[in-house]
Amino acid sequence: MADLHRLSATQAAERMSRRELGAEVYLRAFLERIDAREQEVRAFAYVGREQALAAARKLDAGAVQGMLHGLPIGVKDIFETFDMPTQGGSQVYAGHTTTHDAACIALARRAGGVILGKTVTTELATFPPNETRNPHKLAHTPGGSSSGSAAAVADHMVPLATGTQTLGSIIRPAAFCGVVGYKPTYNLIPRKGVWADADSLDTVGVFANNVPDAALFVAGMLSYPGLFPPVIPSAPRIGLCRSYQWDRASDEMKTTLEQAGRALERAGARVQAVDLPPRFEGLLVAQQTVAWWEIGRTLADETIRHGHKMRPALYERCEYAFQVKPEDYHRSVALARACRQELPDALGDCDVLLTPAATGAAPFGLESTGDPSFNQVWSLLHTPCVAVPAAMSADGLPLGLQVVGRLDEDRRTLAAAHWVHQRLGV
Amino acid sequence: MADLHRLSATQAAERMSRRELGAEVYLRAFLERIDAREQEVRAFAYVGREQALAAARKLDAGAVQGMLHGLPIGVKDIFETFDMPTQGGSQVYAGHTTTHDAACIALARRAGGVILGKTVTTELATFPPNETRNPHKLAHTPGGSSSGSAAAVADHMVPLATGTQTLGSIIRPAAFCGVVGYKPTYNLIPRKGVWADADSLDTVGVFANNVPDAALFVAGMLSYPGLFPPVIPSAPRIGLCRSYQWDRASDEMKTTLEQAGRALERAGARVQAVDLPPRFEGLLVAQQTVAWWEIGRTLADETIRHGHKMRPALYERCEYAFQVKPEDYHRSVALARACRQELPDALGDCDVLLTPAATGAAPFGLESTGDPSFNQVWSLLHTPCVAVPAAMSADGLPLGLQVVGRLDEDRRTLAAAHWVHQRLGV
Repeated sequence: MADLHRLSATQAAERMSRRELGAEVYLRAFLERIDAREQEVRAFAYVGREQALAAARKLDAGAVQGMLHGLPIGVKDIFETFDMPTQGGSQVYAGHTTTHDAACIALARRAGGVILGKTVTTELATFPPNETRNPHKLAHTPGGSSSGSAAAVADHMVPLATGTQTLGSIIRPAAFCGVVGYKPTYNLIPRKGVWADADSLDTVGVFANNVPDAALFVAGMLSYPGLFPPVIPSAPRIGLCRSYQWDRASDEMKTTLEQAGRALERAGARVQAVDLPPRFEGLLVAQQTVAWWEIGRTLADETIRHGHKMRPALYERCEYAFQVKPEDYHRSVALARACRQELPDALGDCDVLLTPAATGAAPFGLESTGDPSFNQVWSLLHTPCVAVPAAMSADGLPLGLQVVGRLDEDRRTLAAAHWVHQRLGV
Repeated sequence: MADLHRLSATQAAERMSRRELGAEVYLRAFLERIDAREQEVRAFAYVGREQALAAARKLDAGAVQGMLHGLPIGVKDIFETFDMPTQGGSQVYAGHTTTHDAACIALARRAGGVILGKTVTTELATFPPNETRNPHKLAHTPGGSSSGSAAAVADHMVPLATGTQTLGSIIRPAAFCGVVGYKPTYNLIPRKGVWADADSLDTVGVFANNVPDAALFVAGMLSYPGLFPPVIPSAPRIGLCRSYQWDRASDEMKTTLEQAGRALERAGARVQAVDLPPRFEGLLVAQQTVAWWEIGRTLADETIRHGHKMRPALYERCEYAFQVKPEDYHRSVALARACRQELPDALGDCDVLLTPAATGAAPFGLESTGDPSFNQVWSLLHTPCVAVPAAMSADGLPLGLQVVGRLDEDRRTLAAAHWVHQRLGV
């Protein structure tokens, strides 16, 4: 009983669907964990204890609901929920409630998921951090913007959580906290009721402690059983991709990628270096341009009517968006389109790429959520990405790599990521 | 004064910015028109008379605001507004209010736009119609889902209005009501605060009585002055495109396209037939598959918690979405990606395509909003489309054509559409 909160979601769901474990009993293990740890980690903006207990009791009293039967879920605080506040980590939305569920939350509930609470986000899922700490070392950032979701899953306060990525908001915090983060192909999970930052980039995804749990979560949510279990028929062909951001990686991160390549090769994978075509070098700047052109316009109501309640750095960044030249925006969009077309060929016969999930381990300090530059290119390219913990840094913080697949190949990407994660054994 | 409501928005904005016309005086012309006509046309779900008057008076008392200074705007009732209800044409949202503006509405206000009211939408911007009638013949549908926006602009109850298109919800009602409809490139106008149906298709756009007015609206909203005025340096090269839906067109529509081609050629354009590549034939079915896979999931909260308040036909259609096979969804998405890549070559050296905006004139009856099949392919391809009135049917209803451009070429598409509209002279 004491270790129920460390069961995998997959195992727990199986036991609950066989009625060997009650949803309320399982939920209480996480509520106890939250009681013990939340004061230090600060992952939650709101814990919906009573709502979650009521949902769990209802599940115990009724029929087995679906693939997520009884699984507690942490919800990033930019996803609307009819029964809990949605405050987006911003004074603009302090005390804000909505009458409806985000579509993917309604879908998760229908599949038997139990919404446990709202997890801390940076302000409006952009860059100004909020109170969450890295559970591995409390003085280090958990990453962001999905800070609370990554930290809560890492600390076993919830087995599953939702996130969104516009720049690097799923993969980076997953890497910093040592959990699995899954950013699906753009537009796979519906965004209705999830607050936007940049329509052409925003992607809904999930956090879990292993790849099958993440796959189960999305398979259940979307009624898309083919995503689970993530099994690849034979050892994957992996393209080791340093990327044009390689110089930004720490020495430890560089070593992590190289060692992972060798370990996976020993385990039977075909591993070869993949260099991205030359014009991919422009994607990082292009992503920045597209992101801020869009974010500034998307946050118009907040900046215009509530600007005085926003962190000044965010307010100013939004205002700056109107100085981005339309021709730069269009050039960036055109580059992204061209590179999306070119990517399948660049991968050759590789199943997936393996590349750093972040520049290194979580940096010291809580005033920044770290550098998203290893994530921005993939956000712009709309590819599925799965962060997997790959090593530990000298001072005891996780180092993450990401498995990147072709557009729409979520199934293959998850399966390869699971294979990789099992072999790296972190 | 009696004809103020028939001024073009471009002229009115110019006069207002020179202080030759007051925003309140201009607004009152539309309020009078609404008083005279709304009982018959039923374009509005809510008229924000007091809110609009207050905004107009504030504009008259202050500095010139921006490109939209003093222009009244009708807002489709799925766009959130902080000061007027948003009910989505559905009992699910009867009396529903929100605390914030949709991003594009906040941007329009900042540019000086005056939000006049909320226009009638079909239920949740899908297919079940609501009360709006076609101002040309009240027993005919105005089209949908942006029914009220198209009808209100056609009847000069407002000079500008917003809309969204997922299947054919901007271009078709514009054609049926004899106004200009502009569906920009996917993701050009931010969707935050606009209720979603299908993330990979939903596109925000506008209605106006001529192309410069539509271009002014979007240029002002996005702070993107390059879109206005829409001027093409020389007569455009036009690809006359019957499309794979040609058999669905009425004889009158077929004649309209052929005659337009000849008239534009006489006016100096280069006009040549353009056949789309063979695999484009599959796009109509693919669009249907993608749309309903996504709509069913997007409307999850509505169907799960409020299904009894939805029209049964919509509820059932949403449930059906879960029977669409993932492999069919992925095949459809893949076809769309491939055709998006192929389209620029298919256009050759044409600036734009000219193709029917609907199967014919607005059908008799209010129980259906008509057939979107001439729009669905372009919704899936994400291209900019501009509907222009091109002829009148034998029984006095407008017939519309659409000008279709390449992705991101909104500027060229608008300019060519303006050139075409001027030459067709309807």
